[in-house]
Amino acid sequence: MSPAGSNPLGFARAERARFYAELDEFLRIPSVSAKSDHDADTGRAAEWVRAQLAGAGLEAETFATPGHPVVVGEWRGAGPDAPTVLIYGHYDVQPPEPLELWDSPPFEPDVRDGRIYARGSADDKGQLFLHIKALEAHLKTRGRLPVNVIMLAEGEEEVGSPNLVPFVREHRERLAADTVVISDSAMFAPGLPSLLFSLRGLAYFEIHATGPSSDLHSGAYGGAVLNPANALAKVIGGLHDNDGRITIRGFYDDIIEPSPKTLAGIRALPFDADEYAREVGARATGGERGYSALERLWTRPSCDVNGMLSGYTGEGAKTVLPAKAMAKVSFRLVPRQSPERVHELFEKHLARVAPPGVRLELVELHGGRPWRASLDGPLFDAASRALEKSFGTRPVLAGEGGSIPIVGEFEEILGANSLLLGFALPGANMHAPNEWFATDCFERGIDTLIHLYDELAGV
Amino acid sequence: MSPAGSNPLGFARAERARFYAELDEFLRIPSVSAKSDHDADTGRAAEWVRAQLAGAGLEAETFATPGHPVVVGEWRGAGPDAPTVLIYGHYDVQPPEPLELWDSPPFEPDVRDGRIYARGSADDKGQLFLHIKALEAHLKTRGRLPVNVIMLAEGEEEVGSPNLVPFVREHRERLAADTVVISDSAMFAPGLPSLLFSLRGLAYFEIHATGPSSDLHSGAYGGAVLNPANALAKVIGGLHDNDGRITIRGFYDDIIEPSPKTLAGIRALPFDADEYAREVGARATGGERGYSALERLWTRPSCDVNGMLSGYTGEGAKTVLPAKAMAKVSFRLVPRQSPERVHELFEKHLARVAPPGVRLELVELHGGRPWRASLDGPLFDAASRALEKSFGTRPVLAGEGGSIPIVGEFEEILGANSLLLGFALPGANMHAPNEWFATDCFERGIDTLIHLYDELAGV
Repeated sequence: MSPAGSNPLGFARAERARFYAELDEFLRIPSVSAKSDHDADTGRAAEWVRAQLAGAGLEAETFATPGHPVVVGEWRGAGPDAPTVLIYGHYDVQPPEPLELWDSPPFEPDVRDGRIYARGSADDKGQLFLHIKALEAHLKTRGRLPVNVIMLAEGEEEVGSPNLVPFVREHRERLAADTVVISDSAMFAPGLPSLLFSLRGLAYFEIHATGPSSDLHSGAYGGAVLNPANALAKVIGGLHDNDGRITIRGFYDDIIEPSPKTLAGIRALPFDADEYAREVGARATGGERGYSALERLWTRPSCDVNGMLSGYTGEGAKTVLPAKAMAKVSFRLVPRQSPERVHELFEKHLARVAPPGVRLELVELHGGRPWRASLDGPLFDAASRALEKSFGTRPVLAGEGGSIPIVGEFEEILGANSLLLGFALPGANMHAPNEWFATDCFERGIDTLIHLYDELAGV
Repeated sequence: MSPAGSNPLGFARAERARFYAELDEFLRIPSVSAKSDHDADTGRAAEWVRAQLAGAGLEAETFATPGHPVVVGEWRGAGPDAPTVLIYGHYDVQPPEPLELWDSPPFEPDVRDGRIYARGSADDKGQLFLHIKALEAHLKTRGRLPVNVIMLAEGEEEVGSPNLVPFVREHRERLAADTVVISDSAMFAPGLPSLLFSLRGLAYFEIHATGPSSDLHSGAYGGAVLNPANALAKVIGGLHDNDGRITIRGFYDDIIEPSPKTLAGIRALPFDADEYAREVGARATGGERGYSALERLWTRPSCDVNGMLSGYTGEGAKTVLPAKAMAKVSFRLVPRQSPERVHELFEKHLARVAPPGVRLELVELHGGRPWRASLDGPLFDAASRALEKSFGTRPVLAGEGGSIPIVGEFEEILGANSLLLGFALPGANMHAPNEWFATDCFERGIDTLIHLYDELAGV
């Protein structure tokens, strides 16, 4: 072993080229969990993770589930008195569509301008991989880790983790940990690392509107037969009032406002809403009246159409009155809303607004609870120090508009506190074409996690 | 020639099997005018019609246009003192999608339960074909027709006839006629033939809503970046008020109410709204408050979504905030609304309702004027007698919710009165899967038209 490889940080530097090559290999597996024709790929991705963990020096095993496999890696050499850290990540990815909007193919990683472009580079394969490499760096240089480690990698995060909670419940003793560490989010800004104080939850539905039993001629029937596409549009259009508030009765009732300290922290962050809108190519930010953009994203629920389909959508004019219309509509939730309660309220809402000639059916596709961190204590301090050592600046506290449904479950089942530190950058196109992960964050991310295990040893 | 073939009606009976075989051949040509990859098929269909007209004994010619060809057949043997009848029809068809809802393939005609199932069987290939066969029956038995005849068959009716009006203008002297006869509509009920007193016009648009420049993660951005699909739904949902009236300012200003006689005629028709709803598989009729279903269809404008597309519409839950959303929205118009004026009012409406963070773009796909018949005079009487001879009952006057944009243009350019008598039956699935044409109507339709030429000789 070279001198550069004699400590974890040196090792990571010396092996960097290999790390990039391995990440490339990982990102080439199209492990799209939402689509059953990719089942073989998710299987391959799971096996790839298992082999990586074994190669890093952990005992690793793949568990079949009714869906995609769960991979567990363990290193218990720090002994019963040392803390146990459970690292959670996911190897599945979002569908890459629409493919034509990608500048390079989603599963052929392309490094350009300091960014690795590929589906999953940021969410979450790239970040999961950072942890594996940090563990490897410790184990290959010192032969040990300062803490006991459990790595838990699932393949169903992008479809709501339907089999993970049963798995965690079943293996709760084996998975018992003091701390859960998750890297599946973004830094607040380039060069400015952050620790998450909250995640929004999710309640994701499909609404099916059905009118006539088959498509009709819009001339011969239009005006006398209710059009399910018009009806669905009216339902969706009516979900927000003119102040951008969601009109479902009782929707806001369960919300617990964030602390004044949290709100003050948000206001103190360097954030330019116009710049933010420009970055995503929008003319302006929007949303619920009375809140700033960051407050809307981190502390307020939202309701978005994720997809919408009805009738004839090809070239030209087809004068059809469609038999049906479909929309995918999801809500982001904040503490203590729950997907179950929102489902119930949404059902009631639809029953109230459905026009007599159209049938509305609600199908829940997935849900996850919101989460709020306990901000005080040694855990956040340890992570802050690790980030500062690698990035040269102390992290800020940030919220996250997205959801990692399993976080709340970990806290409940395992009794562990969670630490969410992400290394993606804002605008990384997670869930969109041209997803990317910065090479600088890739490298500093590994260093941060190498520091983190040392820091956590004392917690 | 057999004795059965010695008069036009006998000829039609004797040659029936061949007529069916020829119609089958015609319907097999997938002449979808809206889709450019079917250009060769529309060309084939035009040539097929030309050859049929020539075979029937007309001088027939195909004219190229910037779009699909126009076919003109002529027989001028009745002399300058006899009336001239221009028969108009179209050989193009609607796109057949969604294909999976057809019980037999759209371009493989299947005769079952007294119906010919195929795209175009009713709209309009089957009905155009009736005229060709009636002409043939006269010419092959008597060697002449009682009137001069011009047959004009176009291939762009389903895309708004963009090249027909210029064609008719250019050839206005050659196409000069006393009467225009069109069979592109339906009978009021099985066994109850009808003559049309009105057609609705059409103004067909695509609305494109654009938000961020690419699809975003609905968690990371939802609530702060306006969602163009939500915005478009709100726009569409807002197009009708709670009374089913269209909310575009000035939309109803140009309407001329139908005569009390027409309204009384509508009320006298045998019509059961519940039965009508059941037939199309809808739970109830709907639409503008204060009008019956037939009044809504024939005398009131309407607004329908014909297609809608945004975001992710595949299997499962993709948490995307879409960059754009599209809807095809069309209005049916009544005298004297015009597509131009509606376009103008709709533009203004969208400018008024567009939210600041979303851009709305309106594209007009096609338009056509509404039409109302002159009910009095010998033309309607001649047609009534022809229908009565074939169907054994006098026709009723009916409106038509659909549009045949060229009718108004013919009246304006050629100065001819129009006679619209259709042989499709209600529920024929024009523009929908499983389009059909009744064999009984096919046979009686040919007989009717054979009678019609005799009756029109005296007009």
